[in-house]
Amino acid sequence: MTFDEIVRARYAAKSFDPAKTLPPDKVDALLEVIRYAPTSFNVQPWRVMVIADAERKERLLAASWNQPQVTSCSHHLVFCANVDLDPLVQRLKERSLAAGLPAAKVEGFLGMVRGFIAALDDRERLAWAQRQAYIALANGMNGATALGFDACPMEGIVPAMYSEILGLPETLVPTVGLACGYATDEPRPKLRFTRDEMFFERV
Amino acid sequence: MTFDEIVRARYAAKSFDPAKTLPPDKVDALLEVIRYAPTSFNVQPWRVMVIADAERKERLLAASWNQPQVTSCSHHLVFCANVDLDPLVQRLKERSLAAGLPAAKVEGFLGMVRGFIAALDDRERLAWAQRQAYIALANGMNGATALGFDACPMEGIVPAMYSEILGLPETLVPTVGLACGYATDEPRPKLRFTRDEMFFERV
Repeated sequence: MTFDEIVRARYAAKSFDPAKTLPPDKVDALLEVIRYAPTSFNVQPWRVMVIADAERKERLLAASWNQPQVTSCSHHLVFCANVDLDPLVQRLKERSLAAGLPAAKVEGFLGMVRGFIAALDDRERLAWAQRQAYIALANGMNGATALGFDACPMEGIVPAMYSEILGLPETLVPTVGLACGYATDEPRPKLRFTRDEMFFERV
Repeated sequence: MTFDEIVRARYAAKSFDPAKTLPPDKVDALLEVIRYAPTSFNVQPWRVMVIADAERKERLLAASWNQPQVTSCSHHLVFCANVDLDPLVQRLKERSLAAGLPAAKVEGFLGMVRGFIAALDDRERLAWAQRQAYIALANGMNGATALGFDACPMEGIVPAMYSEILGLPETLVPTVGLACGYATDEPRPKLRFTRDEMFFERV
């Protein structure tokens, strides 16, 4: 499929066949296109919890506005913003040096990154990390279609309940879900606003 | 290109050939994959300003941390969060009804959407719209690669300066840029954290 075909074919699946599990190679391929998503300054401030266990999906149902995709899907991906940024910057430094980048250049770049991060208050830091997670989410949504299965992005999750049920640390903030599997519903025609409504040029 | 190939080939171009302008059909195709990006509840709370005019790009340079991509690119896309949500919900209603969806179903769905929106404070509303814009940005980044040209996502923009220079209304908040054109630099090897660092399962 071309990217254009992927984008047009993708839809938010509302129900999945609970008997059909995604093969491991498909899951692996999906995680790879997610992992390669770009992030600001390459800080990669998110982590994804991959949930295939039926009992745990069941426990998340009430925390997901009772949307049945959570339990009927094969794998439920929970995109978490990672607000513990300092270790990420340190890791980025180590990997950059290990990859042979010049130390002075790495230090200069990371100095700028540290300055950017230091200027954010807690809420801005979370919002920034969450926006990066959404780029990864987008790769996940398109990736599922490209790989021949279906997915449903789920903003309707209760972060505090997810954190408690999943035992997440405070620094990993559940942000958005992506239920993945084989859909049993059909896409409806896409309804999008017009080109003129979405794009503009002010002269 | 497969989606996997697109994701791996895509990179943030740091310089563009200012003499090479994107042909209109390429720009059109890019805007289409952006327009088809999914948004929460399909509210589509963003608009993109498309800037090809050299003089205006020049005026944005200082508002873009003096990053030369803004002036060397062919088209600079400014993704704006659209926080004027009520008209969008109304428009969605009209289009849904025009598309033949049952009125009761449309009303029920939009009632839920209105409730969701009403529960957001101003800052949450902006953050929510910005996250949706990032999904569209992701389609733009991948779309450029898929269409055979290059792009550079730019968080380093000063929203207040952009608003003033571009004469934007308060309800359209400049959020992130995407400079598009033909790159003169080469991608460096991608540096990404490992699978185990980005994905986890808690048992």
